[in-house]
Amino acid sequence: MNQRTEISTLGEFGLIEHLTKNIELQNASTILGVGDDGAVIDHFGRQTVITTDLLLEGVHFDLAYTPLKHLGYKSVIVNLSDVYAMNATPTQITLSIGISNRFSVEAVDEFYEGVYTACNKYGVDLIGGDTTSSKTGLIISITALGEVAPDKFVKRTTAQKGDLICVSGDLGAAYIGLLFLEREKKIFMESPGVQPDLEGESYVIGRLLKPEARKDIIEFFAQQELMPTAIMDISDGLSSEILHICKDSNLGCVLYEEKIPIHEEMKKAAYKFEIDPTACALSGGEDYELLFTISQNDYDKLVLNEQISVVGYMTEPELGSHILTKGGGKHPVTAQGWNHLKK
Amino acid sequence: MNQRTEISTLGEFGLIEHLTKNIELQNASTILGVGDDGAVIDHFGRQTVITTDLLLEGVHFDLAYTPLKHLGYKSVIVNLSDVYAMNATPTQITLSIGISNRFSVEAVDEFYEGVYTACNKYGVDLIGGDTTSSKTGLIISITALGEVAPDKFVKRTTAQKGDLICVSGDLGAAYIGLLFLEREKKIFMESPGVQPDLEGESYVIGRLLKPEARKDIIEFFAQQELMPTAIMDISDGLSSEILHICKDSNLGCVLYEEKIPIHEEMKKAAYKFEIDPTACALSGGEDYELLFTISQNDYDKLVLNEQISVVGYMTEPELGSHILTKGGGKHPVTAQGWNHLKK
Repeated sequence: MNQRTEISTLGEFGLIEHLTKNIELQNASTILGVGDDGAVIDHFGRQTVITTDLLLEGVHFDLAYTPLKHLGYKSVIVNLSDVYAMNATPTQITLSIGISNRFSVEAVDEFYEGVYTACNKYGVDLIGGDTTSSKTGLIISITALGEVAPDKFVKRTTAQKGDLICVSGDLGAAYIGLLFLEREKKIFMESPGVQPDLEGESYVIGRLLKPEARKDIIEFFAQQELMPTAIMDISDGLSSEILHICKDSNLGCVLYEEKIPIHEEMKKAAYKFEIDPTACALSGGEDYELLFTISQNDYDKLVLNEQISVVGYMTEPELGSHILTKGGGKHPVTAQGWNHLKK
Repeated sequence: MNQRTEISTLGEFGLIEHLTKNIELQNASTILGVGDDGAVIDHFGRQTVITTDLLLEGVHFDLAYTPLKHLGYKSVIVNLSDVYAMNATPTQITLSIGISNRFSVEAVDEFYEGVYTACNKYGVDLIGGDTTSSKTGLIISITALGEVAPDKFVKRTTAQKGDLICVSGDLGAAYIGLLFLEREKKIFMESPGVQPDLEGESYVIGRLLKPEARKDIIEFFAQQELMPTAIMDISDGLSSEILHICKDSNLGCVLYEEKIPIHEEMKKAAYKFEIDPTACALSGGEDYELLFTISQNDYDKLVLNEQISVVGYMTEPELGSHILTKGGGKHPVTAQGWNHLKK
């Protein structure tokens, strides 16, 4: 990034043209993309899922340790994760950004490189958006659309008593990655000469900076003809999300601490901070794994997929929501997920 | 607004529940609304138009003179205007907001009251969104979806040589409204005791603070079986928009100054600022009228609608884009519309 082109040399429309000129549409349903008042999509015989996220500098990301390319990638991923959490396949996104003039065109290009990398990997078309100047920090707003066969979408309200509670991948690592990066930022601010010490932490840092959406899990459901009874993505920690399903489905739950999937690298890293790895899995954020419930009759279908862990089961609402610890204790599940509005 | 409830007393999810509990869905195509990872829409046999806008405090609006209810209303309108500009009917919106803790729940309620008023008036469902804290100003991101019969959407690229150039309503008034409010703000900042003098300026101020989207024009097209060859909405002034159509359709144009529709109240107000009303119509912004081109064969159908003015015609690209003035002059059309990125 040796060159610095001021955004003002392109102007708003020039910038949009510059950023979107290489788009190649990937979905047959995308009839008209960027460049008009709106985009046009054809969804004959399918249903459309729509989801949106607003990401703000200083609230959701810190540019001190977030490369713009990774930020672009992740901004797309967090939206696609919501589409998969409806049991749907993402097809299109719109992207609006607010940027201050401290960004060069090259910096904005890096951000878009990440956006396009994610779009290509997940087969999604960027079909529109809005570009404006921001007088404060970087602002990113993405809306994602997806397709699902009629009435095959899966809500949060339809888990049943006795259903198994499952999660994909492993939990809590992104939160530990954040702790490392915040620590190194603090050291750097105090002693700018000190080089960051992130040796051996690539797993947890990768989980924070470059998460993936669980396309593979949704494809697995389709292959196995497995219809979960409820799905959510895990962005605020397992506790917060399972409580949403309990509330929305009017049920209780039991979780088993020993069943919660935790990566070895994350466990080691958590101990460096003297933090309980289970607490990170329950209350950390930004894992973008899927949490879902299935009928016990479907248990056999899961065994084939080592990316899926059964962590508990749904109960009658009167029993509340509990976690059974490795030590034999029983504690209520409490939501301590990232609540930006309470900060 | 006597009561002040801190947003922190509700929390993020409490706030979302509070803001969305009274939603009544209006469109049969809305299968699932707010409350899950995504919303679900059914568009069998129709095409979907999608458009999005990002509105930032200090860039797009000034809370010193913009009531929150009006801001909520207008935020919806600017998106619906883009949907109508595709010859489509808006059906759903998603709304994301970033709010700082200087806002009370009551203030956010006022904003949403405006949002719901616009949704009800235009028959649109609010189906989802994102709510987060902002460390700086108020941030509003809306994505609107609309329906259109297969291949009845209208682009900017398909105007034809000889087509008539038409606009709805009248132009330039919102810009004059802005000048009044900016003037009164400046006076108030210098002498806080002075009461604002906006007597007699309700038309131009109303055009700025509470614009409408031209649903009636799209309905008129359908009734008359009139298919424009190109449509855009006028958000950056007539000059900027007609140059978009010229560029995208590879044509030139001739505009007649005397044909440009200007409201009497706007003309009087412009003279108070010693500004040429035509310049406001050409380069002012935020009119949210429709600019469209039609075949000369369809001229007879227009006569029935006094909300539509023919202001010129499309030419070969070699002839460039010109305006013929009342005094008999001929000037090139230049885009001096609001370009936020150049500020």
